[in-house]
Amino acid sequence: YGKNTIKFLRLHKEGKKDCVKEVEVCTHLRLTSAQEYLEGNNSLVIPTDTIKNIVLVLAKKNGISSLEQFAIDICNHFMTTFCQVAYVKTYVQEVPWQRLHEDGVPHIHSFICVPDGIRFCEAEQCRNGPLIVFAGIKDLKLMKTTQSGFEGFYKNEHTTLPERHDRILCGELFCKWSYGECKDFDFNCIWKKIRECILEAFAGPPDCGEYSPSYQKTVNSIQMHVLSRVSQVQVIEVVLNNTFYNIVDMKNLGLTNEKEVLVPVEAPYGSCACTLGRKKFFEA
Amino acid sequence: YGKNTIKFLRLHKEGKKDCVKEVEVCTHLRLTSAQEYLEGNNSLVIPTDTIKNIVLVLAKKNGISSLEQFAIDICNHFMTTFCQVAYVKTYVQEVPWQRLHEDGVPHIHSFICVPDGIRFCEAEQCRNGPLIVFAGIKDLKLMKTTQSGFEGFYKNEHTTLPERHDRILCGELFCKWSYGECKDFDFNCIWKKIRECILEAFAGPPDCGEYSPSYQKTVNSIQMHVLSRVSQVQVIEVVLNNTFYNIVDMKNLGLTNEKEVLVPVEAPYGSCACTLGRKKFFEA
Amino acid sequence: YGKNTIKFLRLHKEGKKDCVKEVEVCTHLRLTSAQEYLEGNNSLVIPTDTIKNIVLVLAKKNGISSLEQFAIDICNHFMTTFCQVAYVKTYVQEVPWQRLHEDGVPHIHSFICVPDGIRFCEAEQCRNGPLIVFAGIKDLKLMKTTQSGFEGFYKNEHTTLPERHDRILCGELFCKWSYGECKDFDFNCIWKKIRECILEAFAGPPDCGEYSPSYQKTVNSIQMHVLSRVSQVQVIEVVLNNTFYNIVDMKNLGLTNEKEVLVPVEAPYGSCACTLGRKKFFEA
Amino acid sequence: YGKNTIKFLRLHKEGKKDCVKEVEVCTHLRLTSAQEYLEGNNSLVIPTDTIKNIVLVLAKKNGISSLEQFAIDICNHFMTTFCQVAYVKTYVQEVPWQRLHEDGVPHIHSFICVPDGIRFCEAEQCRNGPLIVFAGIKDLKLMKTTQSGFEGFYKNEHTTLPERHDRILCGELFCKWSYGECKDFDFNCIWKKIRECILEAFAGPPDCGEYSPSYQKTVNSIQMHVLSRVSQVQVIEVVLNNTFYNIVDMKNLGLTNEKEVLVPVEAPYGSCACTLGRKKFFEA
Repeated sequence: YGKNTIKFLRLHKEGKKDCVKEVEVCTHLRLTSAQEYLEGNNSLVIPTDTIKNIVLVLAKKNGISSLEQFAIDICNHFMTTFCQVAYVKTYVQEVPWQRLHEDGVPHIHSFICVPDGIRFCEAEQCRNGPLIVFAGIKDLKLMKTTQSGFEGFYKNEHTTLPERHDRILCGELFCKWSYGECKDFDFNCIWKKIRECILEAFAGPPDCGEYSPSYQKTVNSIQMHVLSRVSQVQVIEVVLNNTFYNIVDMKNLGLTNEKEVLVPVEAPYGSCACTLGRKKFFEA
Repeated sequence: YGKNTIKFLRLHKEGKKDCVKEVEVCTHLRLTSAQEYLEGNNSLVIPTDTIKNIVLVLAKKNGISSLEQFAIDICNHFMTTFCQVAYVKTYVQEVPWQRLHEDGVPHIHSFICVPDGIRFCEAEQCRNGPLIVFAGIKDLKLMKTTQSGFEGFYKNEHTTLPERHDRILCGELFCKWSYGECKDFDFNCIWKKIRECILEAFAGPPDCGEYSPSYQKTVNSIQMHVLSRVSQVQVIEVVLNNTFYNIVDMKNLGLTNEKEVLVPVEAPYGSCACTLGRKKFFEA
Repeated sequence: YGKNTIKFLRLHKEGKKDCVKEVEVCTHLRLTSAQEYLEGNNSLVIPTDTIKNIVLVLAKKNGISSLEQFAIDICNHFMTTFCQVAYVKTYVQEVPWQRLHEDGVPHIHSFICVPDGIRFCEAEQCRNGPLIVFAGIKDLKLMKTTQSGFEGFYKNEHTTLPERHDRILCGELFCKWSYGECKDFDFNCIWKKIRECILEAFAGPPDCGEYSPSYQKTVNSIQMHVLSRVSQVQVIEVVLNNTFYNIVDMKNLGLTNEKEVLVPVEAPYGSCACTLGRKKFFEA
Repeated sequence: YGKNTIKFLRLHKEGKKDCVKEVEVCTHLRLTSAQEYLEGNNSLVIPTDTIKNIVLVLAKKNGISSLEQFAIDICNHFMTTFCQVAYVKTYVQEVPWQRLHEDGVPHIHSFICVPDGIRFCEAEQCRNGPLIVFAGIKDLKLMKTTQSGFEGFYKNEHTTLPERHDRILCGELFCKWSYGECKDFDFNCIWKKIRECILEAFAGPPDCGEYSPSYQKTVNSIQMHVLSRVSQVQVIEVVLNNTFYNIVDMKNLGLTNEKEVLVPVEAPYGSCACTLGRKKFFEA
């Protein structure tokens, strides 16, 4: 296959205000032919320069109403224009520009980059197959300072980890979900709702939180919550990269440290991941 | 000199709520002695492990009411405890954890990382000299989609840049300022006010903005605005790393692109920087 | 599944000389159970801390004669020790320490890091399935200053790329191959031979090189060369990330630039990849 | 001041062989004027686009016989061409392409990137001042597996570090030195000699090494060795970023680990640095 990545900015007006979408688009193509590899015959090869031009032309003509719609447009274009394309996948990721506000007043043309979780999507299609749309959020860093533990795990002669019922839970979250048939979805609205669900399930109620007995259970809670609240989601994958924090032992320094000063442990580094679909969910 | 970097988390309660400060502290020491370099005599050397312990103990004992106060505490400790220290500098940088909110309600113990500009500070002192405190913000990415140009510059046979009166102004901002005598400053409050001043000066009024004839002038506007509004600031340094955006030429593709689709130019990469002090300001 | 990454150094003596292996080991486990996700029941969960301990204990007991043998040892340990493990995959990557030489004499205990391509391997096993071993090289940056072109490709209204018969070919290579049944392989020796084959196929004969009509053909040449020379390789995947170089147009500056000064084009960025197996090879 | 960074490749022939220099050039200018900052008057501003053009034109016209000569050419050009330039500094860094060899035969046009220490240089000049040339090496990662300790350091109530006489010494080295009057220097030859001196002083004799009582002493040994062997060096600065390795305690796992398995300690992270000049050296 061949791959091309292009980053660009699409500017348009909504009334008097400037709107800006900066995206990175990565397009994968797999051709039906093999002659370019085996014989050096390039007659069916679509240069990355052409892929780039097509992405830019579609952005100019269609605009970017949502990342998902733009990815769908690109897939459709390649499938309908080039019969030598056997498979196309388009990944679109957003630079998180937000409009600046001064004393609550939105600025007409100024923006600030706020990377508190990056929105992305993916559309893919095999020739004669359905177009499948995924969306997701990545690089979302979250922390709970309490209401997290890890006890009752499997033990043998290589176990040195003590049981803990009050630890820090901190990690970087990656979530990716697929939509079913995408008829008339408001992708922007659904995405915002899912982001809220993720935060709610991670944190629990604002006044007391919810106890997490493991990273695994927190991953599952996020998946269950999204599936139960957002009917358009078919399958959801969650990966949680853990950052562990150790309470600094200050006995040798003559002090008692009761979960006040902690240092992040860079190694060992762990993550846990799970993919949960709607059927499995209802069967469980 | 010797240098040590330690990253840690300081947790405390404010009423029922958990509060969290995660900081990276880098401490530089220069000793009065040279024997450790010339003779391998370590008798005056303070191991980095000891520096680390001291930083952690001070965090435990004093807490971190502000980055600046914590940096001052560290400098004071090293100057008063070790007579072999000729110079100490402490740099403190914050991990931008923000409390999560659900429907406007603050969560009791859950946080999200929002890196829209990183707060840092620096305190330094030579033996027998004053303690000087700096504060700053870095990695602050801003964009204006209009109200920016660059015309009337110097031209010779190597000039190929066209004049432009409506370009994108985009860049990453670094600001660092020094305070005078730091008696009873509310460092957290002042820092927030300066951040607001920076955004105001960059963007101009929310309804129309303000024309920027160059990156240089924007840098200067930020400096002037901060100096005029925040009396505690003595000297302010601003560096603006530019990201240029080129309008994609779509003539060969049969389209007219009027500042709708642009690509960032990764090379050449430029920046402009200026340091402005209070006296210079009033004399200018 | 759960994942753990640990980086460590294994030191041993060969005669009077110190030998050093610094590796990063990433172990993935998938359990037969789901109760840890669904119910928060941790009784079958193997903590990442235990995984880390096991990797370190195996390094201490067995040493690291080759990355591949070490990965095999880890997989075997998890499969035979824990009946709740449904699948294990171990990735091992080397820090490329090389012994220092002074005037051709090898130093007894000093090393330099030379990252001209990073060696890695992977071993994976499903319960009741065979143990499969992969090896590879990544981050290998290569350049040909001539004997490369790209002509005769597919053209339509979105094509703007000119045909070229003398361009720079530059890229970062990733190669990963699988071994069949690994009885008594000398993994270190085979890996070195494959690395040589890759370089030979990329560059062609030292006195004249070999013309590359496309990145695709170069990828295929590498695969064919390795498969024909190294009988232990079953399947080989090659990914070549392209860096394009544009000849700087100096007409406006009054100069003729004949492929003397070129700038790398960071966007658009492309890559091409192919996986080739032995059967497919002989059938082609 | 204003700054511009440009990365490019300079290709030329030596006999039948292709030679390649890929460099990143960063040019700083400070103007005599302040009107561009204060008034938005750009009439003396040299656009970064023009700076880029000049660097490329000089590369085309003069070639890059050495990084240092190229940096000198750039400084000279700016000082003699633009009277509004008060100060110019040019930093040049090399992409470490090395010619490929097959069975010892050098390839006519193929190269591999080998980043075992990056060569760089700097030339700077104030109007009416001398042109000063620096050269250096950075990102040079070295390790000694023995012949290193740290004992007899300063101790107080915050000391927890045990004394050690056989530890790993590992770090990333940065060296930068200045030349005096640069009449007819063979910069490439001198640079290679200094690199050798650095490695010799770090490692000691190949058969037995040399004991290092501290990072500080190793830094000093490198400086002394370079100053004594290379008369053209006036002042040398060395920074050594330490990576500490801890011997894994395996008592709880029923094993005795005698400096066989070690893990790198990512925090606390330290470095030590020293600048040593010729006069100070002879007086010491």
